[in-house]
Amino acid sequence: MDNRPIGFLDSGVGGLTVVREFMRQLPHERVIFVGDQARAPYGPRPAEQIRAYTWEMVQFLLTKDVKMIVLACNTATSVVWEDIKAKLDIPVLGVILPGASAAIKSTKSGKVGVLGTQMTITSDIYRKKIQALSPETEVTSLVCPRFVPLVESNEMHSSLAKKVVYETLKPLKGKVDTLVLGCTHYPLLRPIIQNAMGPGVKLIDSGAETARDISVLLNYFEINAAREAIRSNHEFYTTASPEAFQGIAESWLGQRIEVERVTL
Amino acid sequence: MDNRPIGFLDSGVGGLTVVREFMRQLPHERVIFVGDQARAPYGPRPAEQIRAYTWEMVQFLLTKDVKMIVLACNTATSVVWEDIKAKLDIPVLGVILPGASAAIKSTKSGKVGVLGTQMTITSDIYRKKIQALSPETEVTSLVCPRFVPLVESNEMHSSLAKKVVYETLKPLKGKVDTLVLGCTHYPLLRPIIQNAMGPGVKLIDSGAETARDISVLLNYFEINAAREAIRSNHEFYTTASPEAFQGIAESWLGQRIEVERVTL
Repeated sequence: MDNRPIGFLDSGVGGLTVVREFMRQLPHERVIFVGDQARAPYGPRPAEQIRAYTWEMVQFLLTKDVKMIVLACNTATSVVWEDIKAKLDIPVLGVILPGASAAIKSTKSGKVGVLGTQMTITSDIYRKKIQALSPETEVTSLVCPRFVPLVESNEMHSSLAKKVVYETLKPLKGKVDTLVLGCTHYPLLRPIIQNAMGPGVKLIDSGAETARDISVLLNYFEINAAREAIRSNHEFYTTASPEAFQGIAESWLGQRIEVERVTL
Repeated sequence: MDNRPIGFLDSGVGGLTVVREFMRQLPHERVIFVGDQARAPYGPRPAEQIRAYTWEMVQFLLTKDVKMIVLACNTATSVVWEDIKAKLDIPVLGVILPGASAAIKSTKSGKVGVLGTQMTITSDIYRKKIQALSPETEVTSLVCPRFVPLVESNEMHSSLAKKVVYETLKPLKGKVDTLVLGCTHYPLLRPIIQNAMGPGVKLIDSGAETARDISVLLNYFEINAAREAIRSNHEFYTTASPEAFQGIAESWLGQRIEVERVTL
């Protein structure tokens, strides 16, 4: 047993989609979340910068005595997951392999689409991971540069969001039967993405897949928390405005939370 | 990527219930299975003997260059999983934590039953693991000494099997809403157990839960096999009669297999 918290990091609010699913599955585990809103989005940044920023968040989480770290950010995972995992003594989980695995299991036509940020798509990591496991699967990737700003500005329910999503996804329509939401911000646009692609396309939420894997790793490493009658307090940190973060986070998580600003 | 096989061990044929589910989920991974029929059942044996026999099977699997070992046997897991896991460099998975976790997620009434062999129930490991995670869950354990011999002698569809199961389970009837099949042989008696308990009781197959966890650990440790067009050959070994083993194994796995006798 290990009652220490689990650390989640993201460039912004997208990682909350992983946290929400995680809290639903394991409500007795304590969460420390840090989002680097001040420097989001990470997607268009150079790899070395993403590496440095992500390590800063990791260092911050380590000061909170976390027992596991989840890179709840595809961009960070694509650049620096293997490095962090190799250097830390605690388990470190990324969001890409769980999503890639789920896509392989889902596709019937062997044609999978991947949506992601500039860095995630440039790294080509989803295609590499999917085809390493399943060489015959065709992967079509699409950069969606306008999705993260829509979510970070809390405009995911606007008519602008609908227009942007429909236009962006047009090249994939009818071409795939499975679509990986390869950025943890994208599940916040899920209903619009599903409408744009049509009901026959299975959307893979890498974050939700990752939440399931966390539970398995807690078992394997024997670091589950005991289920207490009183739920422990979660902690949320952002490098930018706590108020803006709190608005999106509370509406997404469906609960009141405390948010503190942190300087990395 | 790692195209080496995964090693499964069991005291007898019960571990095949884990293998079957594993093959269904990950058909491109290669399996080496060893069953110690000559010395089964393990359940009534002293812990030191179970420890020694299990280590012998582990040593045998290591000669086959396996990339992961699954103790597909609750009795062996209860005695020696932590020791083997600590001593080997490759991941070692047992069947008990996956089953305990699934039971906690399943129960609504907070009343869980556990069926197992003498050693598994004496070790009290399911109750300990379940209550460590969820202190308020009530666990009622039941030794089922006659179940393994029924399965090992291929009598699981007989009227004797039905009689034995109904009599054995009588003390649990109506007392639990979730029942852990805490021995990998028991899923071979599943239809009878379900009938005896009634349709309202959810049966937890520790082996099937474990198969799902294997996939997550293959991802985490990045040791998946590539999906080749041609399925690699599985290997099955027993310390007793290959013919008897083959009969049960082929009917359970639904495929032709080669079985070799091995001396440990």
